[in-house]
Amino acid sequence: MTNAKVKTEETVVPGRRRFLASSAVAGLAGASLSLGLAGCNKSSEAASPASGAASAASGADPQASINWEKYEVHPGKLDTYYGISSGGHSGDVRIHGIPSGREIRRIPVFNVDCMSGWGITNESRAIIGTKPNGQLNYTNGDSHHVHGSYTDGVYDGKYIFVNDKLNARIARVRLDTMECDKITQLPNVQGYHGNFPDKRDPIDEKINYTTRVFCGMEFHIPQPNDGRDVNDPSKYFCLFTCVDTQTMETRWQIKIDGNIDLVATSYDGKIACSNQYNTENGVHYEEMMAAERDSCVFFNVARIEEAVKAGKFIHIGDSKVPVVDGTKAGNTDPKTALVLYVPVPKNPHGVNISPDGKYYACSGKLSPTATLIQHDLVLKWFEGGLKDPRDTVVAEPEIGLGPLHTAFDGKGFVYTTLFLDSQIVKWDLEAAKKAYQGDKNAKVVIDRIDVHYQPGHGFTSMGETNQPDGQYFLSDNKFSKDRYLPVGPLHPDSSQLIDITGEKMLLVADHPAYPEPHDSIIVRRDIIKTRQIYNLDDFPLATKSVKDNRIERNGKKVTIHLTSQAPAYGLREWTVKKGDEVTIILTNLDKVEDLTHGFGIPFYNISFVVHPQQTQSVTFIADKPGVYWCYCLNFCHALHLEMRSRMIVEK
Amino acid sequence: MTNAKVKTEETVVPGRRRFLASSAVAGLAGASLSLGLAGCNKSSEAASPASGAASAASGADPQASINWEKYEVHPGKLDTYYGISSGGHSGDVRIHGIPSGREIRRIPVFNVDCMSGWGITNESRAIIGTKPNGQLNYTNGDSHHVHGSYTDGVYDGKYIFVNDKLNARIARVRLDTMECDKITQLPNVQGYHGNFPDKRDPIDEKINYTTRVFCGMEFHIPQPNDGRDVNDPSKYFCLFTCVDTQTMETRWQIKIDGNIDLVATSYDGKIACSNQYNTENGVHYEEMMAAERDSCVFFNVARIEEAVKAGKFIHIGDSKVPVVDGTKAGNTDPKTALVLYVPVPKNPHGVNISPDGKYYACSGKLSPTATLIQHDLVLKWFEGGLKDPRDTVVAEPEIGLGPLHTAFDGKGFVYTTLFLDSQIVKWDLEAAKKAYQGDKNAKVVIDRIDVHYQPGHGFTSMGETNQPDGQYFLSDNKFSKDRYLPVGPLHPDSSQLIDITGEKMLLVADHPAYPEPHDSIIVRRDIIKTRQIYNLDDFPLATKSVKDNRIERNGKKVTIHLTSQAPAYGLREWTVKKGDEVTIILTNLDKVEDLTHGFGIPFYNISFVVHPQQTQSVTFIADKPGVYWCYCLNFCHALHLEMRSRMIVEK
Repeated sequence: MTNAKVKTEETVVPGRRRFLASSAVAGLAGASLSLGLAGCNKSSEAASPASGAASAASGADPQASINWEKYEVHPGKLDTYYGISSGGHSGDVRIHGIPSGREIRRIPVFNVDCMSGWGITNESRAIIGTKPNGQLNYTNGDSHHVHGSYTDGVYDGKYIFVNDKLNARIARVRLDTMECDKITQLPNVQGYHGNFPDKRDPIDEKINYTTRVFCGMEFHIPQPNDGRDVNDPSKYFCLFTCVDTQTMETRWQIKIDGNIDLVATSYDGKIACSNQYNTENGVHYEEMMAAERDSCVFFNVARIEEAVKAGKFIHIGDSKVPVVDGTKAGNTDPKTALVLYVPVPKNPHGVNISPDGKYYACSGKLSPTATLIQHDLVLKWFEGGLKDPRDTVVAEPEIGLGPLHTAFDGKGFVYTTLFLDSQIVKWDLEAAKKAYQGDKNAKVVIDRIDVHYQPGHGFTSMGETNQPDGQYFLSDNKFSKDRYLPVGPLHPDSSQLIDITGEKMLLVADHPAYPEPHDSIIVRRDIIKTRQIYNLDDFPLATKSVKDNRIERNGKKVTIHLTSQAPAYGLREWTVKKGDEVTIILTNLDKVEDLTHGFGIPFYNISFVVHPQQTQSVTFIADKPGVYWCYCLNFCHALHLEMRSRMIVEK
Repeated sequence: MTNAKVKTEETVVPGRRRFLASSAVAGLAGASLSLGLAGCNKSSEAASPASGAASAASGADPQASINWEKYEVHPGKLDTYYGISSGGHSGDVRIHGIPSGREIRRIPVFNVDCMSGWGITNESRAIIGTKPNGQLNYTNGDSHHVHGSYTDGVYDGKYIFVNDKLNARIARVRLDTMECDKITQLPNVQGYHGNFPDKRDPIDEKINYTTRVFCGMEFHIPQPNDGRDVNDPSKYFCLFTCVDTQTMETRWQIKIDGNIDLVATSYDGKIACSNQYNTENGVHYEEMMAAERDSCVFFNVARIEEAVKAGKFIHIGDSKVPVVDGTKAGNTDPKTALVLYVPVPKNPHGVNISPDGKYYACSGKLSPTATLIQHDLVLKWFEGGLKDPRDTVVAEPEIGLGPLHTAFDGKGFVYTTLFLDSQIVKWDLEAAKKAYQGDKNAKVVIDRIDVHYQPGHGFTSMGETNQPDGQYFLSDNKFSKDRYLPVGPLHPDSSQLIDITGEKMLLVADHPAYPEPHDSIIVRRDIIKTRQIYNLDDFPLATKSVKDNRIERNGKKVTIHLTSQAPAYGLREWTVKKGDEVTIILTNLDKVEDLTHGFGIPFYNISFVVHPQQTQSVTFIADKPGVYWCYCLNFCHALHLEMRSRMIVEK
């Protein structure tokens, strides 16, 4: 036998700019410019170095002196943060350890997952919803944004909320079990893009925690969308939706001009806001880029709820949800307006609030600018104290090409992803305000760092709370090209970890991700308290003792009450007749952490797991006679292979 | 805003042995002992230290002086190996970079994946198979073993083969695109556990590459399993199956006594072999452990195929696959036998061949031994040159509790996972032979290392080929308990990377894995050559030019020939009527690596991606009137959000 030489790791061919020049990005920049990229001037160009590390110009490469040990999580160590990430059109949510980047959990939400039985068990099917013929309503989804519930302006570790852009649904995921417990369909919504929980009630001071989640609607449609007005886009419109986080029912909707993408909420509970592209209501992308400015939209939550209470609403189609009027035409007087539209350049994508609650940053996408809007000026406008919506703007720095999403470190610095430049730009919030006021010496841009490639969302550790810690920025990049071993046409996305503790940003890790995570949050690990064992009492169907294993027949309906306890199920065999409707209710009596059992029936499309002290059930028609060995799918014991029961289906 | 203190990483509470004592493992050991764990004696006990690092006894802890840098893959570096891993009851295959452990690809195979559209596109549905009502045959699977195709005894990078234990299917995955291109149902098989490709033809010297894959059957059933003989287990039996790797059709099957789990193949192409537990044909686990010895079974491939050629076969049920007789009763004369049953202790799980082709290691599971069987003695038995099947055994060292799977480093050392001990044991092959011959001074066990916890499969870098490099061993552990941040009741599995270049094994990384990878291979990166761009000519349905975008109607069948090119689809809108059967054939005309587009239709359960120069199609009934914005699901361009087409479904 030969011992072939193994090459050691080698550096990726540094063809980054070559890639940028030859790839989609060239098309992007070209398209954007030819389509009228707003305000792209020389200072922005100059600030984007054409090649090499962005920081090279300032002398020594800070990357060269990185203390890698700081970011390693060796065997036996735990990560510092949870990274919670939406899975995009994978439909799932992922939990990573940060800084290691290790994926420690996939949470099926809008997808079907035969490992856990999500979409297979009766319990998960009830959450996803089924059609009259018993099929799942949907087996797909496009989970874009994931945000946690708050108490006093910081994550309380109870829930995360994640949207499905494809089928206009919102899901709630419990953080103690890391399982989805509720999915709600939004009525009359298509293209549900962004969502954000509120941080407190706008009126009731005692409610200092999340009770609402706000949902943006990107695709304007005829209302109701039942075939009427399909050929008259002038009659299409969008809704902004508020869902109750306890009941997960839709509280209210508000009709708007234009569309709604991302959502942010104020720390005082008074404002939800969103960016808009396509204020033109165009149906082709050229039309969607016609205007030089679109909007950042601010919703006055208390006034909207007063209007609902006062009965100033309509219903759309069959929906019982009250819909109030948030159009410009219906909100001309600031003192009674429910909505404020602040013009911002151009096709913006992304709005984020600073951890001190003072500023909203709304990026330009097709403008090289970010617009900084001051929260108390928004409130002042609603009080009638400002003449022009643009008076709420306190800065609009040029920061680079294709700015999308912005994060904050709590130290006055702001980090924005630049899709076209494939960079993260670090800028100084106060300096940007000074520059806007005319100070030509204000140094707005502090640093830039190349990322690989085309960043979408970026976010800082605890940066969406009032306890930002200024440790890390994660850049979720849409292209990865040459950063990992090649795996065929489908490339992973790339989540790059950046140390932001110093003046210069340091790229410290590349973490691949199955397409296509859209947004994430980075949560201090002490905030999330999980349970490792279920409670039998939580499950009305539980079989609580081995002696209660039994088979019940009611006509053609057969119920198997079954337990699992390593290395055996409570019944070694059961017999049913062809055509029976069989329900198997499986309770895992094992109490040891991590001792999960599985249950699979060959050829019956049944597979699921039961965690310690959990009960799950499945129902199927026994339509195939023969012997079927139901076996444990999840390695549990030295006799795991022997853990099987015999289902006999008689002819 | 406050900057809360973040704790730095801290060591996991070293309660390992406490966990072992209080967990399933105690139950395991207890059960095994009370159920008659074979041959567990003091020397084995003594070799398993009761606490602390296994290597502590020999002085300084080698872990303390690890050069971590050796195992890190910093930004801009590539991994050294591909790790290719089955996903267990996730139904997928995963590709990792090694040593980083980064998951760089998930390959949907037996599962449904709404990211890629696997199970949604017409092309993938044809591979998975559908029922007469149009539903997929299965939406789940249990992929246990994954092995690559060979040329001259080493991976040739063409294919991997992966089994579905749940629904008795084998899948072929192309390694150039890393996509599944064929799934085959095995007839009359239940519990298809292990599989292994052959490495050359037993007869034709020119065929020095893989043309067969062998498939084990674990669950004995009445044959055919149509409701007959369900209550008479004495009539149940198992089959061992050979599939043609080019056509992916089943070549032949052979009826055996007992069952078949794992499979290994010889380097000369002459032998496929497998371990058996439950030679008793028991239906309860106590019965399955009645015998002190089960078997390692050797199949004489050439003789089986001669028997098939000679027409010495039967058919079972509707299957047209020839089935030959491999029972003990039918194979009493070694000189004509198709099968050799070698008794080995007890309920073994795992058989592996050494890279020099000389030895099979078959582990004991409920015996603390591994049995070493010599390949040329197996051939000698088939020639009638040995009296007793046990004469093929050349060593049977006691190595620890719960031995499962064995890997080789090409330097004469052998690494076996010990499920009950939660250890990897490194032993000396030649010393084990000497000890078997009576040499009491032979030092068999070289080292032990704790893993965390309960290892299943273990494998070495290139260890399943004749080019083992002795660099790494990966231990796929079934329990992870306290090794990662807690994520609720469902724990990740844990794949631990061990450096095996020195005398002492070094634990160098913990890699979590979504449950439940069963087996993996570690492949040198130079072996796998992927393509990043498809060829339009590979797709008969491709729309090759933007000007060929069109809508074709044939009665109620409507076909949309559509292209994608960032940032737009080739048609901005199309109109169909309620009730139409709509087929959308989407060709991605973009040619840039990594420029994948998606396609989603709200509320129509349609989501899939098209890679550069690829064509995919979907078919659905337009049963909901209204406006539906078909949008790009995969971030492609600065105007990605604007990339959408309007489907109008008229009432």
